Amino acid sequence: MKSGISANRKDDFPGWYQEVIAKAELADNGPVRGTMIIRPNGFAIWELVRDELDRKIREAGARNCYFPMFIPQAFLSREAEHVEGFSPELAVVTIAGGAVLEEPIVVRPTSETVINSSFSKWIQSYRDLPMLLNQWANVVRWEMRPRLFLRTTEFLWQEGHTAHATKEDASKYARMIHEDVYQRVYHDSLAIPTIGGLKSDMERFAGAVSSYSLEGVMGDGKALQMATTHELGQNFAKAFETTFSTSQGTTEYVWQTSWGASTRLMGAIIMVHGDQNGLRLPPAIAPTQVMCVVVRQGESALMETVNAVYEKMIASGIRCAVDSDINVPYGRRSIGHEINGIPIRLEFGPREFENGVATIIRRDTGAREECRFDDLIARCKVLLDTIQKQLFDEAHQLMRGSLENASSLDEAREIASQGRWAEIDFDLIRDAEKYGKLGSGLSTRNLHRSDGSLPLSTSESGLRAYVAKAY
Amino acid sequence: MKSGISANRKDDFPGWYQEVIAKAELADNGPVRGTMIIRPNGFAIWELVRDELDRKIREAGARNCYFPMFIPQAFLSREAEHVEGFSPELAVVTIAGGAVLEEPIVVRPTSETVINSSFSKWIQSYRDLPMLLNQWANVVRWEMRPRLFLRTTEFLWQEGHTAHATKEDASKYARMIHEDVYQRVYHDSLAIPTIGGLKSDMERFAGAVSSYSLEGVMGDGKALQMATTHELGQNFAKAFETTFSTSQGTTEYVWQTSWGASTRLMGAIIMVHGDQNGLRLPPAIAPTQVMCVVVRQGESALMETVNAVYEKMIASGIRCAVDSDINVPYGRRSIGHEINGIPIRLEFGPREFENGVATIIRRDTGAREECRFDDLIARCKVLLDTIQKQLFDEAHQLMRGSLENASSLDEAREIASQGRWAEIDFDLIRDAEKYGKLGSGLSTRNLHRSDGSLPLSTSESGLRAYVAKAY
Repeated sequence: MKSGISANRKDDFPGWYQEVIAKAELADNGPVRGTMIIRPNGFAIWELVRDELDRKIREAGARNCYFPMFIPQAFLSREAEHVEGFSPELAVVTIAGGAVLEEPIVVRPTSETVINSSFSKWIQSYRDLPMLLNQWANVVRWEMRPRLFLRTTEFLWQEGHTAHATKEDASKYARMIHEDVYQRVYHDSLAIPTIGGLKSDMERFAGAVSSYSLEGVMGDGKALQMATTHELGQNFAKAFETTFSTSQGTTEYVWQTSWGASTRLMGAIIMVHGDQNGLRLPPAIAPTQVMCVVVRQGESALMETVNAVYEKMIASGIRCAVDSDINVPYGRRSIGHEINGIPIRLEFGPREFENGVATIIRRDTGAREECRFDDLIARCKVLLDTIQKQLFDEAHQLMRGSLENASSLDEAREIASQGRWAEIDFDLIRDAEKYGKLGSGLSTRNLHRSDGSLPLSTSESGLRAYVAKAY
Repeated sequence: MKSGISANRKDDFPGWYQEVIAKAELADNGPVRGTMIIRPNGFAIWELVRDELDRKIREAGARNCYFPMFIPQAFLSREAEHVEGFSPELAVVTIAGGAVLEEPIVVRPTSETVINSSFSKWIQSYRDLPMLLNQWANVVRWEMRPRLFLRTTEFLWQEGHTAHATKEDASKYARMIHEDVYQRVYHDSLAIPTIGGLKSDMERFAGAVSSYSLEGVMGDGKALQMATTHELGQNFAKAFETTFSTSQGTTEYVWQTSWGASTRLMGAIIMVHGDQNGLRLPPAIAPTQVMCVVVRQGESALMETVNAVYEKMIASGIRCAVDSDINVPYGRRSIGHEINGIPIRLEFGPREFENGVATIIRRDTGAREECRFDDLIARCKVLLDTIQKQLFDEAHQLMRGSLENASSLDEAREIASQGRWAEIDFDLIRDAEKYGKLGSGLSTRNLHRSDGSLPLSTSESGLRAYVAKAY
């Protein structure tokens, strides 16, 4: 079969990425530079990703809410590092309701400041803590070099914001979100293994004390930051006077966290799982898991069988659809379903129909098998699990194959410049990173202890770093 | 029991409304004038409303997607009526990425223009039609007299946008959305009857050919527009050159619709169902349907029973929660649950426990009854249905009691000024409406035929109009 994508994935990964997005009708550029239109095919995947994250976030005790996207410009300036970090990326409303505004308004790049203005009102006593909030929202960070899903001026995300009575509570909660929400969903639903660690001082979120990230290895070896979780300490609490009375009657500042994951995840799904024929979707986040394809006009009994299979699939919880568009050549339709990444195709042809079988075609491996009508549901259920696991295993192999030990800065540069990830003692590169001398396009992705665990602080000794190119 | 809300609902409806929102912790004012913070209690209700609408919209065949909130200012000007209608309400970004923009950007007040710029690319042939899209998004219309949920500078809504091959297809689809999505969900889930009709020329959406609205009667007799559905004709198609080739090979402009419902619905729920004790939530959209209240510290067996009841409720699909916060006086907790509008409270006290019963208290009527532990689930299921129906019946009675026939403009003014709705021959008020002489604060809500059906055009003869005060 002809390959669905003309740009070669190995030689021209960026071209391939763009072509997959266009041909699978996932997204489009908006009329304002850097903005993105998420098309129905793309949005349906995002909705499944969002629902999985949302479920886990609720399990973590956070409640959904909604804060305004407009923030008084003065709010951002209250936390010194925060405003410095975000100023170059802000979109500013200066005219509204037909008049020039006295105080300009910024469109939220993130909601720390506006949420703290509410926290300071809502939180009075230790009985109000912890306060655990989450919102799904659009945010704006002006992009000079936009790229669909990866860097867009406006993107969709969830941002969690919590306030706690103690540093330990905040720290524990942040680590729980990092591992039990993000890492878990990426592993189980997105079929993407990630590398968790602490951001270096240079890479930390503007206003945070500690930032943890999960980094994925993309198909071209580059890193993609797939979520960040921040311990904010008392920085925003002090800027917004968010205090509480303790059970002993003293007054203290709250300890805070914030954490977010965005439509970037769509980029990760494409870049980790996609192949030369297009998208390959893990069944857990595939809007259509099984596509029943009617090969060509047959007896009416064939169409009845297809419909019966469809009904049974739906009843058994499989997301199933029927393609009976026989006016379009079969080959073209097959290529289309492959580009769209649908995990399983069921081929119903007149010849097979006589034998009471359909052909099952797996998107991940291309393997074909015949299956009796009565066994289709059970077999598809097994295969969906198998495909989910297969995609994870391939992604894991990609990740393991990209990591390499380095024992000097030069060696790390060499490895990372070739598109792999160098793991190195952080002390060997600390100064080079600090002075921006890691190498063109290279960055420290995150830090871990030599036993793989999460550090509490960047000043711990014996830390290990990953150096790589990143999106 | 003391009343939960201190402002008197009869004498000071606006004060009562504000107090319910504050005490039930539904929403708060944002720091930028006119913006709104939707708190977790309020957002949980909105999520249930949204999910019901979303389900129905999918059944109507529309697919979710996401368009950018930033629109080039020039786009709005392409449709003459559209820009004129929205100009006074626009928020304009003039600075971004640290520089003054060459072309100012508006924050979407609605997405007709940006969606048409995509439609004109995506739609080529009759085979691409109908194209049925929906998005859940935030929009901005600058408000001079903001009011939580009812008029806010930024609000959340869904906006559907469709393109069809013929005027008839578009018209049929618009009417289906109006009746089978909006009216159905309001009736079945929100327990709010509505009056459907065609907007007069004065009240029509800027750029539409026909606008249909659903209007609800609020607790003070005023009207609230709860959804609009527009036939856009070919106005935007012509402005954006959205054409398709017919099966005969000719080229034609598409016919379009758009339709939206917003967080205003939260205002309707409060103002239709609320009473002097606070919110009353229809069970279908109550985040907690049954609250198990432990009256005071009892034997451990009591707590075990409560937990067992809770588990069984959850297992049987009832949204249930437990209030075992015995350090807070029982009365204060009860008032709190009443303010929050929770449909059913189950009282577990030591005395009742000895008798193997709990007390069921209905929020809608205040009726109390004892019920054996084993019968609680079944009884609550019945009662939740009963309460849903009871709230609808009360709302229906409120609506019927507000409508009154008028046979002259003066009579209509008299009725509407007293906070009721005047139904009158449209011909009797056509000119007065056109020249803004209906009366201070009065407006034509919508038009219907004398048999109650939806008109096709405002120029039909024999139309009837409702005149009322409105939010």
